[in-house]
Amino acid sequence: MKTPTVTQPLVITKGHGTGNDFVLFTDPDDVFRLSPGQVRLLADRHRGVGADGVIRAAHTASSPEVVHLLDDEPQATWFMDYRNADGSISEMCGNGVRVFVDYLLAEGLVTFEAGSTIPIATRAGIVDVARSASGHYQVDMGRWSFSEGEHTVRARGLDVPRPSLAITVPNPHIVVALASRDELVDLDLSAPPVVDPVPHNGANVEFVVPSDPLVVDGVGVIRMRVHERGVGETLSCGTGAIAAALATRHWAGAGAPNQWRVDVPGGTLGVRMFATQEGEHVSLSGPATLVFTTTVNI
Amino acid sequence: MKTPTVTQPLVITKGHGTGNDFVLFTDPDDVFRLSPGQVRLLADRHRGVGADGVIRAAHTASSPEVVHLLDDEPQATWFMDYRNADGSISEMCGNGVRVFVDYLLAEGLVTFEAGSTIPIATRAGIVDVARSASGHYQVDMGRWSFSEGEHTVRARGLDVPRPSLAITVPNPHIVVALASRDELVDLDLSAPPVVDPVPHNGANVEFVVPSDPLVVDGVGVIRMRVHERGVGETLSCGTGAIAAALATRHWAGAGAPNQWRVDVPGGTLGVRMFATQEGEHVSLSGPATLVFTTTVNI
Repeated sequence: MKTPTVTQPLVITKGHGTGNDFVLFTDPDDVFRLSPGQVRLLADRHRGVGADGVIRAAHTASSPEVVHLLDDEPQATWFMDYRNADGSISEMCGNGVRVFVDYLLAEGLVTFEAGSTIPIATRAGIVDVARSASGHYQVDMGRWSFSEGEHTVRARGLDVPRPSLAITVPNPHIVVALASRDELVDLDLSAPPVVDPVPHNGANVEFVVPSDPLVVDGVGVIRMRVHERGVGETLSCGTGAIAAALATRHWAGAGAPNQWRVDVPGGTLGVRMFATQEGEHVSLSGPATLVFTTTVNI
Repeated sequence: MKTPTVTQPLVITKGHGTGNDFVLFTDPDDVFRLSPGQVRLLADRHRGVGADGVIRAAHTASSPEVVHLLDDEPQATWFMDYRNADGSISEMCGNGVRVFVDYLLAEGLVTFEAGSTIPIATRAGIVDVARSASGHYQVDMGRWSFSEGEHTVRARGLDVPRPSLAITVPNPHIVVALASRDELVDLDLSAPPVVDPVPHNGANVEFVVPSDPLVVDGVGVIRMRVHERGVGETLSCGTGAIAAALATRHWAGAGAPNQWRVDVPGGTLGVRMFATQEGEHVSLSGPATLVFTTTVNI
């Protein structure tokens, strides 16, 4: 690993997926690793560019932490080096990987062939990304599981503690079903929901309301709001949408669909469950938007 | 007034003054007035560029709402057309006018001659801006006054309701003196402070702690946090810093200085009180930083 380079011009692009927003830049040869302080400055919404996360596009072959992934998947040319706005490392980001691939495409760094997927190297392994004719991206997020333990959740605006379902995809989620759209609207997530017992390492908490009817043209439809651990309420959380769809399918019982539409405050995401040789996988689909490109001194 | 132009490329610059941030663009001939929706999109921190306000630089001569100001001050070539992030109009912004002049200077639209000031047209009239050798700007904000009425203020983290002083500069402020730095740090401004009786049209609320000693080398030193009406806690409020300094000078009594340093979460501002023929004026001084320039489709 190289030491961070001090103040120099950096060309960055700002983009978002359903309101979850990112600063992206290209560093193929691994010469521009940012310090946590530089990440915080870029992500600062008042004094920098502003983002939920900062994504460095590096060659997998030049990146010690993921170069081994090329043994199984030599086509995974690009590594998504993801940092949270606070400078910490994150293994994966469901909304971020769509924006990452849209950015690589706009920069001419990858091309999609008809019907093909693009493998992206992440600290959580390879993820395969497909692109629809409408320009949305679908990301195979791999396996998921129910988590141990039963939790109740209290939140401002809810009269009594509610039961929940704990799901790992692979980060931890607690999903709470609400009774009505009004309950979802009235929820005050300016303070963190209180989960009892407190999960190890915390969890994101999703509040979900089914549509009426739940299933439209074979697709399950739900609306959700999310409180992300250490962040607060956000416009969208990709793995949270997956957890919400998985929990609702579980509660709906036999015959529930394997395709879901999840309305989040920042837009709409799609979740699909499908069988693979290693067990059921989930995919996340949705839009990616690049907003502007500029040069900053960092 | 022209109707707003639909989607086209717009070159914008992002800048901030003590963390109060703005999107600026130039429209000399008044052909690119933004609709409230376009302002909200530009100011959107996740899906747009992100800012507390949007500033259009227009020729005063081309702007019906301020062209009359040229009768008294023919040198006021530029009009600061300020919009809040929600699309509404604001007459003036103390931090914004510094960033506006720094932007005009960077774009080559004004030049400072030694010892001179630049008059800027605003909806609140002409403001004169000076530039120091260190690159800070000093803005004559005009007259101020005490407001009628006595109010108490409650806020999360404060044990009992506190007395306050109401000041107009020219927007309404309620200033509360706290006993210690710890009280200021422990204050929770995620919920609005409760002012009793509620002021007409609301007010910004400033919480102030004097330094110990209060006066250092002839300059009064205070630290403040601010809750802006309709916005929440912000990193900085220019007129709030002025109100805080005026209130503290009032409380300090005879012999208190006319020059103040106000530490806000986003940096440091200077406030000076000085006599003029029409009564006492206050000036606000501080830094301005341009962060990047880019092109967006709006």
